[in-house]
Order: sequence, then structure tokens, then C-alpha cells
Amino acid sequence: MEKWRNTHRLLRQSTKSLFDRRSHPNFQNSIHLSDSRFTHNFGRTCKPFRPYLEHQKWNPKTCFHPLRDHLEYPKTSMGACIGKSGKIQCRFFGSVATKTQRHPSFSSLNADDISYFKEILGEKNVIQDEERLSTANTDWMRKYKGSSKLLLQPRRADEVSQILKYCDSRCLAVVPQGGNTGLVGGSVPVFDEVIINTGSMNNIISFDKVNGILVCEAGCILENLASFLDNQGFIMPLDLGAKGSCQIGGNVSTNAGGLRFVRYGSLHGNVLGLEAVLANGTVLDMLGTLRKDNTGYDLKHLFIGSEGSLGIVTKVSILTPPKLSSVNIAFLACKDYLSCQNLLMEAKRKLGEVLSAFEFLDKESVDMVLNHLEGVRNPLPPSMHNFYVLIETTGSDESYDKEKLEAFLLRSMEGGLISDGVLAQDINQASAFWRIREGVAEALMKAGAVYKYDLSLPVEKMYNLVEEIRTRLGQSAEVVGYGHLGDGNLHLNISTPQYDDNILAQIEPFVYEWTSKHRGSISAEHGLGLMKANKIHYSKSAETVQVMASIKKLLDPNGILNPYKVLPHSLLSYN
Amino acid sequence: MEKWRNTHRLLRQSTKSLFDRRSHPNFQNSIHLSDSRFTHNFGRTCKPFRPYLEHQKWNPKTCFHPLRDHLEYPKTSMGACIGKSGKIQCRFFGSVATKTQRHPSFSSLNADDISYFKEILGEKNVIQDEERLSTANTDWMRKYKGSSKLLLQPRRADEVSQILKYCDSRCLAVVPQGGNTGLVGGSVPVFDEVIINTGSMNNIISFDKVNGILVCEAGCILENLASFLDNQGFIMPLDLGAKGSCQIGGNVSTNAGGLRFVRYGSLHGNVLGLEAVLANGTVLDMLGTLRKDNTGYDLKHLFIGSEGSLGIVTKVSILTPPKLSSVNIAFLACKDYLSCQNLLMEAKRKLGEVLSAFEFLDKESVDMVLNHLEGVRNPLPPSMHNFYVLIETTGSDESYDKEKLEAFLLRSMEGGLISDGVLAQDINQASAFWRIREGVAEALMKAGAVYKYDLSLPVEKMYNLVEEIRTRLGQSAEVVGYGHLGDGNLHLNISTPQYDDNILAQIEPFVYEWTSKHRGSISAEHGLGLMKANKIHYSKSAETVQVMASIKKLLDPNGILNPYKVLPHSLLSYN
Repeated sequence: MEKWRNTHRLLRQSTKSLFDRRSHPNFQNSIHLSDSRFTHNFGRTCKPFRPYLEHQKWNPKTCFHPLRDHLEYPKTSMGACIGKSGKIQCRFFGSVATKTQRHPSFSSLNADDISYFKEILGEKNVIQDEERLSTANTDWMRKYKGSSKLLLQPRRADEVSQILKYCDSRCLAVVPQGGNTGLVGGSVPVFDEVIINTGSMNNIISFDKVNGILVCEAGCILENLASFLDNQGFIMPLDLGAKGSCQIGGNVSTNAGGLRFVRYGSLHGNVLGLEAVLANGTVLDMLGTLRKDNTGYDLKHLFIGSEGSLGIVTKVSILTPPKLSSVNIAFLACKDYLSCQNLLMEAKRKLGEVLSAFEFLDKESVDMVLNHLEGVRNPLPPSMHNFYVLIETTGSDESYDKEKLEAFLLRSMEGGLISDGVLAQDINQASAFWRIREGVAEALMKAGAVYKYDLSLPVEKMYNLVEEIRTRLGQSAEVVGYGHLGDGNLHLNISTPQYDDNILAQIEPFVYEWTSKHRGSISAEHGLGLMKANKIHYSKSAETVQVMASIKKLLDPNGILNPYKVLPHSLLSYN
Repeated sequence: MEKWRNTHRLLRQSTKSLFDRRSHPNFQNSIHLSDSRFTHNFGRTCKPFRPYLEHQKWNPKTCFHPLRDHLEYPKTSMGACIGKSGKIQCRFFGSVATKTQRHPSFSSLNADDISYFKEILGEKNVIQDEERLSTANTDWMRKYKGSSKLLLQPRRADEVSQILKYCDSRCLAVVPQGGNTGLVGGSVPVFDEVIINTGSMNNIISFDKVNGILVCEAGCILENLASFLDNQGFIMPLDLGAKGSCQIGGNVSTNAGGLRFVRYGSLHGNVLGLEAVLANGTVLDMLGTLRKDNTGYDLKHLFIGSEGSLGIVTKVSILTPPKLSSVNIAFLACKDYLSCQNLLMEAKRKLGEVLSAFEFLDKESVDMVLNHLEGVRNPLPPSMHNFYVLIETTGSDESYDKEKLEAFLLRSMEGGLISDGVLAQDINQASAFWRIREGVAEALMKAGAVYKYDLSLPVEKMYNLVEEIRTRLGQSAEVVGYGHLGDGNLHLNISTPQYDDNILAQIEPFVYEWTSKHRGSISAEHGLGLMKANKIHYSKSAETVQVMASIKKLLDPNGILNPYKVLPHSLLSYN
């Protein structure tokens, strides 16, 4: 028993240096599925660790960010960014920044406005400092840049209320901003909107250990909440690469998906209550802490995912799952995409209650990583595998859960769903497996220009799009497909030596039309923001968008909340 | 192996006669936790079975219903029902039926209306038959009765659209009706509203086995969907006592909770998409089949739980979990309510991924069952236990899951959370354990008059209400508390020899005020309907209710959809 405890401590400590270890994979002790040892007792399992970072964590104070810290990005007219070296190019999501006109009905700031805000917030919470404004005006990827002259830092909902009531009466447009880690230009001003930063509202209000219900202010940073809960034996139901900077209010407002989606589902299922302030200053108390409450329309859902365009979220009540101690990871090969699908189906059935990740990569994705990232190698012997799957389980019992996974893998191998595979024996191996999956985005950046699409599609059709794009582009591009198969979320990436509008014209609008035809989503988890506000019709019917616009006009008749975002400009008379 | 298969078949067959067996519990082979055999191999575990029926299933064609079939209910002015025998009395939920005036702006049906409906639906789908209308005008409990002269049976959304467009133009009020199993008067006309029955829209449209996504029409009966899915190896994420009659469209419209809530959560998390028809006939296609879709406001949530007052749901897309094969049940005693809470907390942590029910009963609830129901006995030796807990686990692996539960129970006993307990060894024992929990409502009915409250409360405060009511009523009533502790859902029941308005005056509005003070919900899962439309303020703030009313007016400006329900009449100018 003492030995297990020591192992436990060791593994917990090791999670802190996970990323250092990732470039030093060590497969000597991994268990190969065709190995006779597979049925033996493998000893310790790895402890919980950071399983997946779609966007490498970025914290401006403490973290290295490869784009922000190493490059400058002169924007081209097409939104493309050219690095100093000229070698790394970035133009995310393949979409062109929307051309937008400032809405003439919005007022411009004057000295009286500033005085009023100082009166209600105090001098130090009314920010006009150029450097701070410059940061707040620029998005995470330096793709969008506004020209706001004012950032306000309310500390309570009643201050948010006073600000909005005033702005509404003056027709001053505002942009709510949390950690500013969004990827679609939703969290920065487009023109001179007043920035309302929620970061000063960062108190944990209560935690109910019996039910796992956390109530906190919107400005709490996700990682801080996770740390708080860790001490209580719980976890947040969502985890993101940006968790060191992003705030729970922003997570809720953008309906963030993230790493634990396949296990714990969307925020619509986990958020129990909200407090939000409407454009006219009304504070809506929907801050229930109940799992069941059928008293009237469940309005909080309107604010989950509406990207701050209907109200500013000021408090959140959220259901948090208990922390489970046993994590196991397998890296597997499948002969074709159908096998990946069938394996997913079986995994849901046989591992249902412990399955915490089911990621897939095509051969081209893995080759991209192996060719462009140092220190990464394929744990499976070189062969003709066309697809790879990474399965993670998380449960409450080390030995039982691992045996369950092993039994499942053996059965799947016997049944032909898996061609080959390895099961991580320690955290180094687990990290190395994840490194392959996580490394694709980085490898693509190193390979040249990349057109990126984050799509939801029916799983059975998902890979058809990759193949069609591949056929369409022929030798002119390298097309890779990978993503969260368990969530039906495809990351389609097209790599070319350099950006080429002829290539782009072959991809768009084809990729959006194809997605639309198959009832997919053009934004699986990033939202629409400014970037895709005018593309909503690819995923939503005209009637539905019209109702959205009616609700926007009902709750924010002057359109002051996060203008130019989410909904087509034409519907909101912004053209 | 052959032996196991035989056992498996036997157990599957035995589930069909579960209720016959329930009155013949057999505890001889149950495992007592303090028994030395507890650590041994207990042999077979029971197979999945109907775990809990809050409302005994009722199907007018095939099922016995103790209220409907055995008694006549002359309603008193207070809504109380006196049985022929004079012994069983019923007045559900302790609330008095609302006095309501027919809204003068609504038109009355004329011959032209009937002709028009016959033209679009065909003769046979325009029902004027008195007997059928009488059934459709009366609610499940015979507490509410309307006087509609017309029932329409559309077969497709476009027919619903044509009906609503016409009714809206004529200002003819309508009531959408599915299985009519609601408990708050939400699914029957109040006056002469046209009944739109969704039962003819009962096709399964598609099932995606890879992702477990079912798309079907709103009129599909829940039990039929469950049977269909069973053949596919999946289950519905909700299960209800009324599943033989209730329809998925009604389930969604009322945000039904039911038996699997603690495991799979609310319909807001499980419903992926909807098609709904607005009052003006607009068909809103929100029928996504994607787990992730962040393109605009997620409008479907407005229709989940709005009880047909914002639109009529015509199609549903829902995420269905895989069917798991291993079910285990334990019946436990705890010395106090705090131990029940701590046990819940531990169960969530240690059994997190397999926990499928955590029900509690106080001593008074169990005594009520033992004193009034034949053939039921306490599987634990008579003692001074004040509280009982029923734990159910459902997982994918018989041996692992059972061992996991056993280990948890042993630890909890050693830690003092459990005073005593038994673990079911076969389906008879499991059924007998559930019979105690399920029998409370029936026992209460036999004991005399009963005032029933279905509340959501923070778990740590939940039992305080039971104790306060007990103190408040003294010797004049028997107060019992039981319910879904895992969901924070209390069933508070007050039993008296006969209905007495003085007793009622001591309970109400106290119970609503207490619930409101502790930020609870006066309707955990049944909705507001007609019964509690004017009580919404006990659970929702004035500002929130005002926004609800604005949205109602936006989407249904003439108020034709399910009038007099959900929202306070004053806000909708129905007074």
C-alpha cells in the first residue's frame, strides 16, 4: 500500500513538468497489443494529466506563446500574417476578415461620459492608458484590431448595470471582454466600442461539496477555478488550452467546448444558473443552483453561446464532476475510417462510463507530425496504417478501469477493428501519445501556409469531406484530417507552401457548402464572432436566424452589445 | 459460460413480470453488509430492470390505473376528490385550481373553421366525437377539465403550420397535446381551445448508431422509442413512469426529468435539435444532429420546458446513451441526514461513472410503506435507523462493477456513513428494494388525505423543511420526506386522516415561501401548467419573468398557444 502511495505522489508531481517530458518519448516499456504481456499485470497506471491542448495555453504574464512572442504580423488585406522569417505563415480558419462599416447611430465618447464612469467605478477602473488599450483592442491571434479609447473594470453586477444603462441611453456601443482568448474576433472592439472587462469580478461565491455546485463571478479564470476545485476533490466540466487566461464568463458566453466535452457534454447541460445584465441595465437573476427546476422558460440558455450580444454574464453556477483518479491511454491503428467509426461505437458501449477521449488522426496528420516535429516518433511499427485513434479512459478505480480497457482492446483486436496498438504504461508514454495528437497544429504551422476549418459533421460523413478536398486540390496541397471523433468535430487542415488565393477559391465556399449540405456546423466550438457573423446561413435556416435577430432586438433594441458580431449585419441594419 | 448465458436469459425474461414479483420479496439470499459473506463472490448480478416508477405507468388501453379505473371523483370546490369508498381521498400537490376567465379576444369556432381544417387535414383527422373529446378534455388525474369542441390530428409539420397560421389569423386559441400525462393541467384545454394532438406524427426518421443520435417525430411514444433503441443497443436518456403513453414531443416541451436524470442529466443537455412551429405558422428548423454547434443563439432551449406556449415541437433529435448490461442495487441505513449527504458525496466520487440512482427515504416514509402495503418488509433488521438510502449502479461490466460497489459499501460502513445495509443478489431482491421506495406514494394514498409537494432544494437544507413542517403541524399530521437525493429533488408529503383547510393554511404558502427563501424550485420536474402559472414568482425573479413574458409576446403575439399556462395571467393580460 505504501508503495502505491509513493507512486501516486510521484506521478502527481510529474504532471507539473508534463510539457518538458513530451519531447522525450520513451516507448521501451509500453505494452504492444500483440505482445503476450498484454494480458499480464502491468503495474501502475498513469495519474491524471493534461490530456489535450488544442490551443497551447497562453498566459501573457507567464507563458510562451509561439505566435505572439516570436513573430510580428503585418496583416495583409486578406488577413494573412507573414512572420519576420518569412517561413511561418498564418491565416487561421481560411476566412477573410469581414469588411464592416461603423454603425452611424452609435455615439462617440466625450468627457462627460468619462466623468460619469469615473464617478461610478472610481478613477483606477476607468482605463485610458494606451498600452493597456492596445492589448485589449487586439485579439489573441492578432488577426483583429479595434480602436477603443476606453476600458472599464466593473467589480460587481450593479456596476455593470449602471454602465450598460448609461451606454444604452447614450447609444454607446460596448464589447464585453473576459480573457480575450477567442478565435473569431468576438472579444475585441471592431471600432471604438467601450471595452467592459470582467476580470475584476473574480470571486468564488460558494461551493456545495455534496452536489458539486460551484457559484462564482464571471471573471474567475478557468485555471483558478480548476485549482480551487482540485483541493475540494472536484474538476471543472470543461478544460481548455487557454485556461490560464480565459474566464468562466467568457466560456459560458461562447459555450466553450474543450477537452472534456465527450465525457461531460456541453455547458448547456452543466451550467445550472447565471446572472446576466441586459443592455438596459436590468440584472437578470437566473442564478439557480438546482439540478431540476421547471418553473418557466429556461432563459439562461439564451446567454450561453450568444457571445455577449444579448447580455453580459456576471455570475455563473455550474455543476462540477468529482475528480477521478485513474487515467489510461491507448494509441491504436485502424485500417480504414469505417473501422474508426465502429471502434468508436464499441468504445461507447464497452467503455461508456469511463471513456474520456476518442481522438482520430489520418495517416497524413501523423506523417505531418513525424516530418516536422523533433523528438516525436510513431509508437507503432512503420506499416500501412491509414488511421490512428487515441483512446483515453478516466475512472475511479485504477485496477478495474485498466483491466476494462485492456479487455476492450483485446476484443477489438480479435474482431479486426484495431490493426495494432499500444497502451501507455506511465506518464511519459501517455504524454508521448498525446504529443502526436496535439502536435498536428504545430507541425502544420511549420510546414507552410495552412487553411484551417473547425467543423462539426455527422461522423459517418466526416471523412468524405477530407477525401473530396484532397481530390479537388490534387498535388497542389497536403490535406490532413483529424479531430475529436467522439464529438463529431473535424479539424480539416489544408497545407500549402504559401498562401494562394486560387487555392482558397477551390476550398471556399466549397467547404462551407459541403458542410451545410450535410447539416454540419461551420463553427463547432469557436462561435461566429465577427469572423463568421455573415456565414451563419450555412448552418442555420433563414427563419431561425430571423428569430435570433428578433430576440436580439427585443433584449438590446439599440444594438449596443457587442455589435457587428454573431448575426448577419444585414439583419441588424449594420450595413 | 453457458451457465452465465442461461442466467442472463432467465433474468431478462424475469423483468417482464417484475411487478408481479414485487409483492413477494425474498431476502433469504440477500447479502447483509455486516455478514462475513459480504466479501465473497456473490454469483450473478441482476439484469437491467425498471428501476423506479414515480407515477405508475398508465396506458388507457392496456393498463390499470388505480385512480381512473376504480373511483369516481366528484370534485369539491377546492379541487379535492372524494372516492366512492370515502376512504381514499386525493388532492394532488396541495394547490387549489386556479380561477381563470376565458380571454375575450379569443374567437369561437364556427362552421367555416371546421371546413377549413377538414380541407387541410382530411375528414378523419378533424375530431368532433364527444367521447374522444371528453377524454382529451380531461387531464390524467381528472383534476382539470376543459370544454374543447375540436381535436385536430396533423400528420406533418406543414399541417401543424397551416393549422397554426389559420388559428393565429382567426385568434383561435389552441392547446398542444401529446400523451396527456402531465400533472399540472398543462396539456388540456382550460376552456374551448382547439386541441392539436401530435400522436399521428409518430415516425422514427433516422438513427445514427455510431453517435447514438435518434431523430424522430414528436408524437413517438417514449416506450416505443425505448423498444426501438433496445434493439439497437441503446437507451433513451430519460425514462418515466408514464412512458407507455407520453410522447417525446411532450417530454421535450415539459423538460421531463424522470428516472435517469442523476446519470444522464436534463434534456437541455441531451436534446441536440428540434423542429418547432411558431404561432404564426413558421416552421423553425433547428433539427441539428451535432454534438457541437456554436453558430448563433441556441434557440431550441426556448422550446425545451416552455410547455407548448412558445411553439409546437414537431421533430426531435436526441443523443441516446449505449445500453449497459450490469445493474446492482443496495438498500442501506444511515443514522442521520448528514450521513446520507456524506454518503452521496462519497458515492459521486467513488462510484461516479456507474452511479445511476441515489434515493433517500426517512423512517416515516418506510414506516408508511410497511404499515399500509401488503407483502412489503424492511430487508434490514428492525432497529433505530432514521434514514434509508437506495443506491443503484449501472455499468458495462458485471464483475468489475459489482466489486466496485461492494468495495465502496465496505469502506462506507467502516467509515460510519452506513449503519447497516443489504446488497440485492437477484432481481427479486432488487425489485423488493425498489418496491419500498416506489411504494411510498401508494401507501400515502391508502393512509388518508395527502398534501403533495415536488420541490428542488439545496441538498444540505432539504430535510430542514421536512422537520420544520413536522414541528409546525405537530400531532395533526404525519410528515414524510423522501426523493431523489442525487438530484436535490424532495417529495414532501403530509398525510392527514382527511382534507382540512386549516391544515392546508398551515402548509401553504409556508412551503412555497420556505422554498423560495432557500432558492429552491416549487416545481422540480412537473412544470407550471395551469396549476402553478401564478406561483412562478416563488422561484423566479420579477425581472426574469418579465423577460419570459416579452419572449412569449414576441413569438406568440396573439397568445393563442396554450393560453393561461406557465406565466402569470396578469402579465399576459388574461385577467
